[in-house]
Amino acid sequence: MTAIVSVFVASPDGGRGLARDMAVRWALREAGVAHDVRPLAFADLKMPAHRARQPFGQIPTLDSDGLTLFESGAIVLHIAERHGLLPADAAGRAQAISWMFAAVATLEPVIVEREVALLLEGDQPWTPARLPLIEARLRQRLDDLATALAGRDWLAGGFSGADIMMVSALRRPAAQRLLGDWPTLAAYVARGEARQAFVAAFADQHARWQAARG
Amino acid sequence: MTAIVSVFVASPDGGRGLARDMAVRWALREAGVAHDVRPLAFADLKMPAHRARQPFGQIPTLDSDGLTLFESGAIVLHIAERHGLLPADAAGRAQAISWMFAAVATLEPVIVEREVALLLEGDQPWTPARLPLIEARLRQRLDDLATALAGRDWLAGGFSGADIMMVSALRRPAAQRLLGDWPTLAAYVARGEARQAFVAAFADQHARWQAARG
Repeated sequence: MTAIVSVFVASPDGGRGLARDMAVRWALREAGVAHDVRPLAFADLKMPAHRARQPFGQIPTLDSDGLTLFESGAIVLHIAERHGLLPADAAGRAQAISWMFAAVATLEPVIVEREVALLLEGDQPWTPARLPLIEARLRQRLDDLATALAGRDWLAGGFSGADIMMVSALRRPAAQRLLGDWPTLAAYVARGEARQAFVAAFADQHARWQAARG
Repeated sequence: MTAIVSVFVASPDGGRGLARDMAVRWALREAGVAHDVRPLAFADLKMPAHRARQPFGQIPTLDSDGLTLFESGAIVLHIAERHGLLPADAAGRAQAISWMFAAVATLEPVIVEREVALLLEGDQPWTPARLPLIEARLRQRLDDLATALAGRDWLAGGFSGADIMMVSALRRPAAQRLLGDWPTLAAYVARGEARQAFVAAFADQHARWQAARG
């Protein structure tokens, strides 16, 4: 059965692959799982049909093999478990899953905090004074991540679902524009983006964005 | 083999069970897994011995059966998978894991955002003007969660690891003090806190806090 990913009809990211379906598309391409999309307009996100799949009215969701999942981390873990995107040994698997949670619970929130300050609160009078505080918190996490990645290509043995989630977090512009200060992290993101499955997934979402644009 | 959880020597929460080891202690008590703690002073968190287990210098970690895990979500998932704290059917399991990620990636960050505003930025001149913006974001998520929980005791079938993570997020004072507006959520947290395993885990961490206090 073809897996179905819910995505935006027209992502507000300008086709840059920054919406959260990108990690799921990437994982499905790595796994070689045939999939299609359910394009949702913003108004659809509030509708009962979507809320039954996603209680917070977000994308993505995954319908696959009679199961419904939400949260990109949960979906990528689901795909990773079934398609060899986790280390085969128990110790490596435990590390990879730890890193998946670290990506969404420890890294991404401080990245989104900077994003909110720059975008949602960009014109508020307090933003210039707050940004250095936010950046200090984010830079501490990036420092720690760069230390952990020193001398390694991927977070947990070979490439895994952990790297899909972590690279996806670091690709958010609020983080990526700082990565010049951490060559280890810039190279890590570049390694992720160079993977054939990433390139294919990026093209998939870009084609959809362009089609919606008309 | 006894599982080992890294915890603060003396939690800064005044024994209220708000540090992130509490979710892990609760899960271990639900699972009936014998465990001990590795108490760490703040200075220990920066040391290589701890960084090798936890790249960001946080607590908790879990050492169990030769594996090392970090991130409370990953640890609770690990315990839940092995000890019947996930639904037995594939559809329920997928939902429970989706909810575990939602707790740490969708609910907790907006709760922590309010916490940071009240605590870390409490004396900043912008905080009174920012708080309503933050609370609007948090209240939207709480509304959605209350809708999802309407008529249900737990998030995914019976009690599961998802409830451990979600109740733990909602117990943070920055969320719990708002729950009077959502009787569904207040009752949900109270149901979690009334469980025998929660009570035992709470007593465990409280005894440690009191011993450190001297």
